[in-house]
Amino acid sequence: MRPVDIIRKKRDGLELSGEEIRFFISSYTRDEIPDYQVSAWLMAVFLRGLSRAELAALTEVMLHSGEVLDLSFMPAHKVDKHSTGGVGDKPSLVLAPVVAAAGVLVPMISGRGLGHTGGTLDKLESIPGFNVNLSTDDFLRVLGECGCAMAGQTAQIAPADKKLYALRDVTGTVESPDLICASIMSKKLAEGIDALVLDVKTGDGAFMKREEEAIHLAKLMVETGKRMGKRTVALITDMDQPLGRAVGNAIEVAECIDVLRGAGPEDLRQLCIELSGWMLYLGQRTANVDEGRQLAEQIIAGGRGLEKFREMIRLQGGDPGVIDDYRRLPQALHTADLKSPNAGRVVEIACEKVGIAGVVLGGGREKKEDSVDPAVGILLHKKVGEIVAAGEPMCTVYYNSEARLAQARALLEAAFRVEPGGKPVSKPLVRKVIDGSL
Amino acid sequence: MRPVDIIRKKRDGLELSGEEIRFFISSYTRDEIPDYQVSAWLMAVFLRGLSRAELAALTEVMLHSGEVLDLSFMPAHKVDKHSTGGVGDKPSLVLAPVVAAAGVLVPMISGRGLGHTGGTLDKLESIPGFNVNLSTDDFLRVLGECGCAMAGQTAQIAPADKKLYALRDVTGTVESPDLICASIMSKKLAEGIDALVLDVKTGDGAFMKREEEAIHLAKLMVETGKRMGKRTVALITDMDQPLGRAVGNAIEVAECIDVLRGAGPEDLRQLCIELSGWMLYLGQRTANVDEGRQLAEQIIAGGRGLEKFREMIRLQGGDPGVIDDYRRLPQALHTADLKSPNAGRVVEIACEKVGIAGVVLGGGREKKEDSVDPAVGILLHKKVGEIVAAGEPMCTVYYNSEARLAQARALLEAAFRVEPGGKPVSKPLVRKVIDGSL
Repeated sequence: MRPVDIIRKKRDGLELSGEEIRFFISSYTRDEIPDYQVSAWLMAVFLRGLSRAELAALTEVMLHSGEVLDLSFMPAHKVDKHSTGGVGDKPSLVLAPVVAAAGVLVPMISGRGLGHTGGTLDKLESIPGFNVNLSTDDFLRVLGECGCAMAGQTAQIAPADKKLYALRDVTGTVESPDLICASIMSKKLAEGIDALVLDVKTGDGAFMKREEEAIHLAKLMVETGKRMGKRTVALITDMDQPLGRAVGNAIEVAECIDVLRGAGPEDLRQLCIELSGWMLYLGQRTANVDEGRQLAEQIIAGGRGLEKFREMIRLQGGDPGVIDDYRRLPQALHTADLKSPNAGRVVEIACEKVGIAGVVLGGGREKKEDSVDPAVGILLHKKVGEIVAAGEPMCTVYYNSEARLAQARALLEAAFRVEPGGKPVSKPLVRKVIDGSL
Repeated sequence: MRPVDIIRKKRDGLELSGEEIRFFISSYTRDEIPDYQVSAWLMAVFLRGLSRAELAALTEVMLHSGEVLDLSFMPAHKVDKHSTGGVGDKPSLVLAPVVAAAGVLVPMISGRGLGHTGGTLDKLESIPGFNVNLSTDDFLRVLGECGCAMAGQTAQIAPADKKLYALRDVTGTVESPDLICASIMSKKLAEGIDALVLDVKTGDGAFMKREEEAIHLAKLMVETGKRMGKRTVALITDMDQPLGRAVGNAIEVAECIDVLRGAGPEDLRQLCIELSGWMLYLGQRTANVDEGRQLAEQIIAGGRGLEKFREMIRLQGGDPGVIDDYRRLPQALHTADLKSPNAGRVVEIACEKVGIAGVVLGGGREKKEDSVDPAVGILLHKKVGEIVAAGEPMCTVYYNSEARLAQARALLEAAFRVEPGGKPVSKPLVRKVIDGSL
């Protein structure tokens, strides 16, 4: 087999065999095929697409390019959730402890923020001492002791994906549904899970702005999961405005603690219940999703989710005191309110702009190498559909640099649209469910 | 400007500006953009295509990536011919001396054989002592003294094309009409010519098997030539069977000498007159193509083409004695006749198979690094439409290795199709003329 023939075949829109895909990707992982051949192939895949069989073969070879956790020695079901990313997108911090408190294991390998979206690892690291860089042994120990563990991808997990992702990033081949699917599913299936709930975001603050794109990606992932023998469900959820009210790192942790306490913003709370319900159902803890939702509500009401979160923080070296005193989280030096210039109803909060404002403040990354400021962020006082008076604060900015504040303010002013005669809007939070068993 | 944004723009089918193309290609030529980004871009170009403006910009930046010969100090018109390659495709060796003998300068930079096709440089090198590796100064000296010079591309001519071609070869991006056009035209226009005649081959032995593909490429090249201010004409010519009767290196040189002597196979002779006619017309030596054809006939009849060829051989260090005694050309150790198994008419000679048989004998290259055996080859006694008796030789194979003969024989036996009731075939040699002035 010659790499150039595999490139030509895909270039001409023909279907590659499983053997060809395995040869190409595993040779690349062993540095036996140069980057310049793989990038030409990636562009051909981007423009020609992959068949479902090709996609499954690609996912499988990427999955098996490294360590695949074997959790069979733990008797409980293992379930994870993955989100395609958004602004204020923080349910993982609620779901993991809630679902673990119900006796379903959650081995969660998460990512960092990139572009206008936040990342779970950055949020967790705002808890003083919290260690997301766990070895496989430590990850398994935490998981065994408290039922959930949240850490970053080690070098041993799906190394093919690491190499491919770095190459895609610089060759304009990131936004391919097929390549996104293979990347996500290979990493998630390496966790040794039985089932997976996908939260596929759509709207202005998502990578997939159009709902059809989100549905297409969701179907690819659900079908790929099914082909690999894992029960997989995808929820298409709204990201046309930030989720919840907090956008930042420490302030998002605080908001999650609010939800675990039974409080917090309604949309965030509702999505956490919904996703927990599916996880509990797929984890065979409840007979259906509705019972899953009820169980999640009970766990939160009984404070068992919060106690599980406290336990996980402690086991991963963090300061559990943050739960009772948010002042132990990093605090920004200054705050500033952004006031509404006129009275009316908020008809739009341009979500990507809010995400970029968060990055500009220092809370996110433009490049992978950037470090983040855990204390900064934006707290929304008004969400879409809410009434605002002239001069009333629409949001509070937590900041550490006046120059950055000025940039963020301009973005936020452009993000909020308040109209005097605006009508109340009610978009469903969960737009669609793609269920592999249906 | 970021390379990745240029890749993404082309990936999405948008038109790149001249500035973007110049930045991308000139940075690559200076090793400031890595191969892996350029190969992704090449695949996007392959699949998305280039607009005429993009193609002109690409050709121009490749042309100016190195030395562009300035021949303005020579008062005569400068014209060249380029062929897209075929089997037994040897007119250059006739055209250069004939056109030069008429007072039009022919600064011809040629290539080597690759795949099933032969190359002018390999043919010339079968003349003992003939040096195709001329410095620019030597090239100009030969051109000034005898009116024509034939040499290989120096490292100074279109270095961007050298780099891009090597990358295309290993990334499945060779067969793009746009990239082929830019590659050919950048090299040819670097010769400092006023006009160019293109011989675009079509048929089984050509790279463009289908006539529509050949016409498409021809139009691209003619239009690109026109945009660069050079009068360009393309002839779409037949390559469904080998051109002339000789396929090899030394035996093709001998056949060209036959043509310059006023003899030789009719199809080869006819194409040489046709192409010379166009070169003489575009070189403003004659008022129209027909007068050009007549002048070419006269030059051959008067022996002036042959004398010019002798002069060029001498100036480039070769043995001019080969003209009077073909035994001074490299001779194969053995010959073998391939006899027709039945009587009838030759209805097909699968042209690519004959070309591959030539490569198998050692006369061509599978890889660029291969060396060629100048002595081996195939002499066709029968061409399409001719009558053959059972047991009559269809061709003679000149060979130096029994093992190679066996492989070549199998290919040649499969190439000839003789049918008892076969009808005489007359396909036009010149299928179409694409003239930029029309």
